[in-house]
Amino acid sequence: MITRMSTLFLRTLREDPADAEVPSHRLLVRAGYVRRVAPGIYSWLPLGLRVLHNVERIVREEMDAIGAQEIHLPALLPKEPYEQTNRWTEYGPNMFRLRDRKGGDYLLGPTHEELFAQTVKGEYNSYRDFPVYLYQIQTKYRDEERPRAGILRGREFVMKDSYSFDLDDDGLRSSYERHRGAYIRLFDRVGLRYVIVAATSGAMGGSASEEFLAESITGEDTFVRSTESGFAANVEAVTTPAPAAGSVEGKPAAEVHHTPDTPTIETLVDFLDSSGERGFTAADTLKNVLVKTRQPGTREWELLAVGVPGDREVDMKRLEAALEPAEVELLEDADFAANPFLVKGYVGPKAVQDNGVRYLVDPRIVTGTAWVTGADKADHHVVDLVCGRDFTPDGTVEAADVREGDPSPDGNGTLEAARGIEIGHIFQLGRKYTDAISLDALGQDGKPKRVTMGSYGVGVSRMIAAIAEQHHDSSGLVWPREVAPADVHVVVAGKDDTVREGAERISAELDEAGVRVILDDRGVSPGVKFADAELVGVPTIVVVGKGLTKGVVEVKDRATGEGTEVSADSVVGHLVGLVRS
Amino acid sequence: MITRMSTLFLRTLREDPADAEVPSHRLLVRAGYVRRVAPGIYSWLPLGLRVLHNVERIVREEMDAIGAQEIHLPALLPKEPYEQTNRWTEYGPNMFRLRDRKGGDYLLGPTHEELFAQTVKGEYNSYRDFPVYLYQIQTKYRDEERPRAGILRGREFVMKDSYSFDLDDDGLRSSYERHRGAYIRLFDRVGLRYVIVAATSGAMGGSASEEFLAESITGEDTFVRSTESGFAANVEAVTTPAPAAGSVEGKPAAEVHHTPDTPTIETLVDFLDSSGERGFTAADTLKNVLVKTRQPGTREWELLAVGVPGDREVDMKRLEAALEPAEVELLEDADFAANPFLVKGYVGPKAVQDNGVRYLVDPRIVTGTAWVTGADKADHHVVDLVCGRDFTPDGTVEAADVREGDPSPDGNGTLEAARGIEIGHIFQLGRKYTDAISLDALGQDGKPKRVTMGSYGVGVSRMIAAIAEQHHDSSGLVWPREVAPADVHVVVAGKDDTVREGAERISAELDEAGVRVILDDRGVSPGVKFADAELVGVPTIVVVGKGLTKGVVEVKDRATGEGTEVSADSVVGHLVGLVRS
Repeated sequence: MITRMSTLFLRTLREDPADAEVPSHRLLVRAGYVRRVAPGIYSWLPLGLRVLHNVERIVREEMDAIGAQEIHLPALLPKEPYEQTNRWTEYGPNMFRLRDRKGGDYLLGPTHEELFAQTVKGEYNSYRDFPVYLYQIQTKYRDEERPRAGILRGREFVMKDSYSFDLDDDGLRSSYERHRGAYIRLFDRVGLRYVIVAATSGAMGGSASEEFLAESITGEDTFVRSTESGFAANVEAVTTPAPAAGSVEGKPAAEVHHTPDTPTIETLVDFLDSSGERGFTAADTLKNVLVKTRQPGTREWELLAVGVPGDREVDMKRLEAALEPAEVELLEDADFAANPFLVKGYVGPKAVQDNGVRYLVDPRIVTGTAWVTGADKADHHVVDLVCGRDFTPDGTVEAADVREGDPSPDGNGTLEAARGIEIGHIFQLGRKYTDAISLDALGQDGKPKRVTMGSYGVGVSRMIAAIAEQHHDSSGLVWPREVAPADVHVVVAGKDDTVREGAERISAELDEAGVRVILDDRGVSPGVKFADAELVGVPTIVVVGKGLTKGVVEVKDRATGEGTEVSADSVVGHLVGLVRS
Repeated sequence: MITRMSTLFLRTLREDPADAEVPSHRLLVRAGYVRRVAPGIYSWLPLGLRVLHNVERIVREEMDAIGAQEIHLPALLPKEPYEQTNRWTEYGPNMFRLRDRKGGDYLLGPTHEELFAQTVKGEYNSYRDFPVYLYQIQTKYRDEERPRAGILRGREFVMKDSYSFDLDDDGLRSSYERHRGAYIRLFDRVGLRYVIVAATSGAMGGSASEEFLAESITGEDTFVRSTESGFAANVEAVTTPAPAAGSVEGKPAAEVHHTPDTPTIETLVDFLDSSGERGFTAADTLKNVLVKTRQPGTREWELLAVGVPGDREVDMKRLEAALEPAEVELLEDADFAANPFLVKGYVGPKAVQDNGVRYLVDPRIVTGTAWVTGADKADHHVVDLVCGRDFTPDGTVEAADVREGDPSPDGNGTLEAARGIEIGHIFQLGRKYTDAISLDALGQDGKPKRVTMGSYGVGVSRMIAAIAEQHHDSSGLVWPREVAPADVHVVVAGKDDTVREGAERISAELDEAGVRVILDDRGVSPGVKFADAELVGVPTIVVVGKGLTKGVVEVKDRATGEGTEVSADSVVGHLVGLVRS
């Protein structure tokens, strides 16, 4: 196929769009790949759509290769299946909801676990039918609070979602591994650099889960990785190595001290420092943070106290992930007023537990450790309160913030922070959705067996933004060949007939050989053409110009900028070789 | 590609679905191509999705062949562009509307004229840029009052919509002709029998317009065609040949008669018959029907009188089409009460016109024709009221019903009624949408020129229903090869290893040769396999069974049912020949 710039529906822009903060957004708009229609809602112009189709084809090939079967479910969905799993409510304002002319409730599908489970239930019922993998490549909808960065976080976007259905946990694990392998192959093929991080399961329910993050400083997802090993994880998924429990024997007795005006850790440490015989630091104090939680589908809030070492903050995202699917909120003044046993700034384990409030602590707070903490009385703290002797937490919780330099959970090296763009997510969902609709298979023994499910997503349109983030320079986009909108960009650099005809001939021969060509046959200056070729980012640029009188053209590698003179007679063979390599 | 029935996500049904009234719906569900999710909302299972992709590919190829460029606009659209053209209101309850989390109004695109015009305005501004043809293949949404017949009239459906942008009317006409040609080629390729009918322009505005209707007795669209010529038209688009005007000279004078109890044409004719010197028929009477109309965007209703020969009914659909975009309603009793000059059952032209009500008549009511009509007084009619002498209509209107046997508007033969499924629609829209957003191109003379637009739609998913309506028999579907989910359906008719291995070898060799194979390798009886093969409808069925011991297999043509014994050694070559023919 020869695409002529003279007729291609494309206008490149010299200026960056005003709303574009990240390179992919800036360049995809400037090079005429996408256009904004509304916040987080974009049109795909011809070159953008070609890249999208290329990525879709690669995804399709890799999914087919593991035996997944493509189907296509609606985007407009009735409420009922989402009510059965409670997601009609749980999804909150991120879900687009609407009513039809008869008043029926519908939604625009943000993800399709319910519908896939229902679809399998509609067709299959015997152990012989399983495992089965189904996928779709589909337009999805999420009413993001802050859509950003063009197609990086849109409200209408293209996703590949697939689902595995197995009879047992071993089967699920193997289905998960096969999808993981397919994802590795497909992200490799599109030229992305990425890490696979351990993740929490988000709002999906279930257990094992990993995210594929394209490394990018503009990414929205923070993750940590070990300086030594291959360990990488979402901050929400980092576990804190617990020190060995110690003996409580021989520890000094707990003692209440008058510590006026010390409602914060900082004021407390300052006071202890200035008054104290011993050198206390924030790490010696125990900070108790009060939150309230509510289980999905219930209306009652319940108090919860979280204890962390005073040199750490409670990271609400980690706490929320740990308590999922419950909602979590910080206490307001009214809550303190309603629970007078909570003395703001001086909360200790005792009042909390005496009043039936659950008390969860950071894994570092083990038996035998001694703490300075609130004495449940204004201007008073207790010193040498020993865990396992003076208080016994109701359990541990991963709520303390994670910091660079923390030990890596796998015991190798320390953690460092990095940023990435989530391009894939794989989950071992388990039976959350199959339980909701009673998806069973008749076992070999004639007894029904509850099916177990995996869910696997690829952000197809987001992947294009991620590729653009990783593959560009100051002049424009630099597409990896397999996703590029064309293989070769032929620039007609001159007005005389020889040059024009030479370029036409080379383009026609390339086309004949199955090479995808963009031919810049416009009546604009070579400078404009060069700039556009670099902006558009096709991997190989061929300049047909004055050299043709000497029988040569220039073949330029868009990525390295290297140019080579190649004889006009052999250039087609040369380029076919490049493209097929 | 070899698709194994043992793992294919497919369960055929022996029973017709309860809600299926038409063959395509029944068979597409029974053969496992589609599944219902909600009224008018369907999932595509693997075989259905393959057919959909095949049709999409054909549409794409034919659109690309006329130089149209594929883009992809969002389905979720902001209200504003649709407000500019008034369609936010005009579309009424057929449009899905929703609000985002910030309260912004959005819609699910039923068609995209506004957005395409806006997109062109965003990129192009010079006469050099035109003409340009853009298209998309996209999921569209219409909240149909009565979704029916599976994917035949869905609420979520796939459409190809394209738009042409030209600088002048000649350009638009030529763009229209090119699209018309592309549609003829693509509907021919998918194996549809269809007619091209003159159509009214619907809610789209504009002038010339034709519909492609797939002939089908289950079709929702009625059309008429000439018994002699190629003329075909929507009932709404049929024009009535007007007789030549005659002289008013020498006609008897109009005379009011006392005609007690004759408020209907039937009672009037009976009365005249029994009392009369002359033999009057209903065709000699002039029936005046009162309606009220309202222009879009206004709140006031206006009265309108429509005169038709008494042997015809007013066809409200034709009247609405003629008065579009105005709304039309019949008068209620309250309206008669509010306008006492309207004597129900005895309305004549005089009172109507004397009271400033517009009076439009059927084209058959020409100067020199004499009529019996209401005398604007209860129980009275006037006889010999001559058009052009005693009353002068304000114009003509196509409101009378069209009947089989009416003369064809092109003068050749008479009309007969037929039914069809609308699969394509082409419009010369003109400047309705470009005026709304001031889409101009700078002309060669430096002056802005308003762009003119064409709009062209293909019902991609509906086309599949139409193909199924035309291509099936009592055993199942009978796909034309280019849209079929596979080329060859290999049935393993026997359990011994020779048969199984023979079928595997033939399938592998076919696959090697690029033939798409379904291989029924299931452990079920040959009878079940034969029934499923016929139901699924792949064009060629190969039965590998006992004959293999004699070195033969059976090749069966699904459409004709003819079976041929072919030697197992040459069957692959034979089938490749069939597929490529």
